Formats: sequence, C-alpha cells, structure tokens
Amino acid sequence: MDIREALYTTRAMRRVKPDPVPDDVQARIIDAAIRAPSGGNTQGWRFVMVDDKGQIAKIGELMAESIDMLFSTIYKEQAEYAQTSDDPEAKQFKAIMNSVHWARDNFAEYPLLLFAFDQFDTSGGSIFPAVWNAMLQARADGVGSSLTSVLLFKGEEPLDVLGVPKEEGWRMACCVPMGYPLGKWGVAKRNPAHEVAYRNTWGNPIDPIPEPLWP
Amino acid sequence: MDIREALYTTRAMRRVKPDPVPDDVQARIIDAAIRAPSGGNTQGWRFVMVDDKGQIAKIGELMAESIDMLFSTIYKEQAEYAQTSDDPEAKQFKAIMNSVHWARDNFAEYPLLLFAFDQFDTSGGSIFPAVWNAMLQARADGVGSSLTSVLLFKGEEPLDVLGVPKEEGWRMACCVPMGYPLGKWGVAKRNPAHEVAYRNTWGNPIDPIPEPLWP
Repeated sequence: MDIREALYTTRAMRRVKPDPVPDDVQARIIDAAIRAPSGGNTQGWRFVMVDDKGQIAKIGELMAESIDMLFSTIYKEQAEYAQTSDDPEAKQFKAIMNSVHWARDNFAEYPLLLFAFDQFDTSGGSIFPAVWNAMLQARADGVGSSLTSVLLFKGEEPLDVLGVPKEEGWRMACCVPMGYPLGKWGVAKRNPAHEVAYRNTWGNPIDPIPEPLWP
Repeated sequence: MDIREALYTTRAMRRVKPDPVPDDVQARIIDAAIRAPSGGNTQGWRFVMVDDKGQIAKIGELMAESIDMLFSTIYKEQAEYAQTSDDPEAKQFKAIMNSVHWARDNFAEYPLLLFAFDQFDTSGGSIFPAVWNAMLQARADGVGSSLTSVLLFKGEEPLDVLGVPKEEGWRMACCVPMGYPLGKWGVAKRNPAHEVAYRNTWGNPIDPIPEPLWP
C-alpha cells in the first residue's frame, strides 16, 4: 500500500467484526511498532497483544466503566450539548459518542487488543509513534483500529489484569482494539491544514495552502 | 513509496543539508500531519513551520543550551559511561550523542523546523500520531527529520520566540528539524519485537516471533 493512502485513510475504526486477526498479520503489526524512534533510542516500551477471550472480557468491564466516566466528566458538556443541538459540531460529536458506545457494548467481541506501555516517558513522544506505526501497518493489512487512553480512569486495575510490574515504573500509554472493519475505509473529516498551521510565527498564514494528497 | 519502506526506514536523521525544502513538499508534510486521529476528534493542535533564518538562529541558541542541559542532567550517567566504555550499548549512545552534538553545532543550517503544539492533551496520544505522520510523509519525499522535546528545558522561551498564546493553554509537544539527509536511509537498530512484546499477559512470550518486513 502506498504511504499516502495509509496516512490518509487510517482513521478510528471502532466497529469491527469478531473474526480473528491471523498470527502473521499480528506479527507484522508488532514488528512495525518497534521501528519507531524513541528519545535517545532508549526503546523504553513494552507491548501486550491480547486475543484471549477471558482477558478481553475483563478489560471490557473496565472499559465500560471508563467510557461512562469519560462522558460524565471530561466530555460531560459536549455530551449534553450533542443531545440537544443539531449544529454540525454537535452532530459530529454525537456520531463519535455512538461509535464509542458501540465499542463499549461490543467490547467482548473484539478479536485483538494491543496495549502499549512506557517507562519514564513523560511526554508520550517516545511511545505514540510506535503505536501509530502499529495502526498504520494494521491498516495496510486491512485491519482497523482505534486508540484510547480512557482506561487510565481505572488506575491500576487494567495493569493488574495484564500483570504489569508497576513497581518498575511501567505505565499504560493506551489500549488499541483491532479487527476487520464493518464499515468502509475513507478519509476522516479534519479541519484544513491552513487553519491550524502557521508560517514562522503563530498566526502568520501558511502559504501555499496545503491540499489533500489522497484520493 | 510503500508503507512498509516508510515505516522501516524513517529513522532519526539529524545530519542534513542546508538546501531548502520546497513549498509543495512542505505543504504535503503539513497536510499529512492533520490526517492523524485525536481524542474525540478534537484536533486540539497547531503547527508552526519555520524556515526564516532569523527565527531558526534564535531557536538554535535555545536548542544548544537545552542539549547541554540534557547531557548534564537526564543523560548524565549514560554520557559519562559512553566516554569510558567500549561495550556496544556505550558505543551506540556515543553515536547518538555525536549526532545530537552535530545538530547543536549546525542548527542554524537546518532549512526547516516543524513545531507541534497541543492544548489539554495530557498523554501525548493526540499530538504525536500527527507529528509522526508529518515525518513519514517527509520521508516519502526524501526529507529527513528528527523529533525532540528537549526545548522544554527552556520553559516559555521558545514559545515567546514563536509568539505562542500561552494563556490559551497551548503547550509545545516537540520540535522537528527537517532537511535532505547527508547520509543514507536505512533500517535503524532496534531490540527485536519478541523481546518487548508479550501475549495476553506480561512476560508471556509472543508467538510466532515477528520478523522484519523490510527490506
């Protein structure tokens, strides 16, 4: 797959089929992850690939509680607004909410979860390139994924399910449920680059205006 | 370019030529960045592309001080060890140090810096996929890059150079110097996947052992 197609069409894919992700596809995903750079090339990362149904069910319980906490705290206002308004922003947020609630209600059906952990990485700059590599390689093999850090709401509980040695300073960066998509691949809606990118100083327009490379 | 080649050969490229990065290449880099996912699709990001020599020189002064601070604090022990040992780990760290010192001493010659900022993203999971997209798209166009958060040592000073409205909660995630490489592209040295990835629970071996996809 061309790099441009991968960069443009790897969007959050929460609705996936229960079909298993074959071992060789999983191996490609994890091997792509470790190719990413990390500060001082320290590679202070660990990954856990979960495909055991019992483990996924346990994580699913924590995920359901976490998602409910997310929408009753950080996203409380947006969630209420989305229920009462018809403007485009409210509609978009409602679509995301529905998708996240689908993930909550069907979590036990995910065939694969990828967990990423870092040690002493305070910024996230030494773990999320690796996670994103995994998601891009998954996309190249037709596997959808979505990145969430929402399990952090549950503190040490998910770490205990996975047997993470917390005393060594390992910290969960995120959970990435994966599977073959129910829907179609496509370019996600984004605010255009010239609205969020500047030239030389903040607020100074970027020129020429960047244009999408795909399709 | 094939996605696999991009994922496997996009390594930290600090030694680059002073040749400018054309506008259309820059536009592709920034447009790829904004295709990444972010929590709740909030896209709480801003990017500043710096190619003004005066700005680059100012950042270069802060960068030199930051790099010196890095090696006299966080990396102090490794730096001392690298000077006195000949073991493989020490040699590798020395190679990175030399490369970082090259960047410090030649910073004013970089033709392009990409800065990424986030707002209310505590984990980094909503900004580093975008940064890494930019670096992968740069790679596809033959442009090398390296990601560093070392300027955080200088607190608000880099933000002031770039005119960032700190009062709105914008925070620098990283600086990515870019340019056409002096050296060759290749697969970076990494600890193999089966040493850092587990199956279902921490410490449980992953099987089959993942193998490199490239070259």
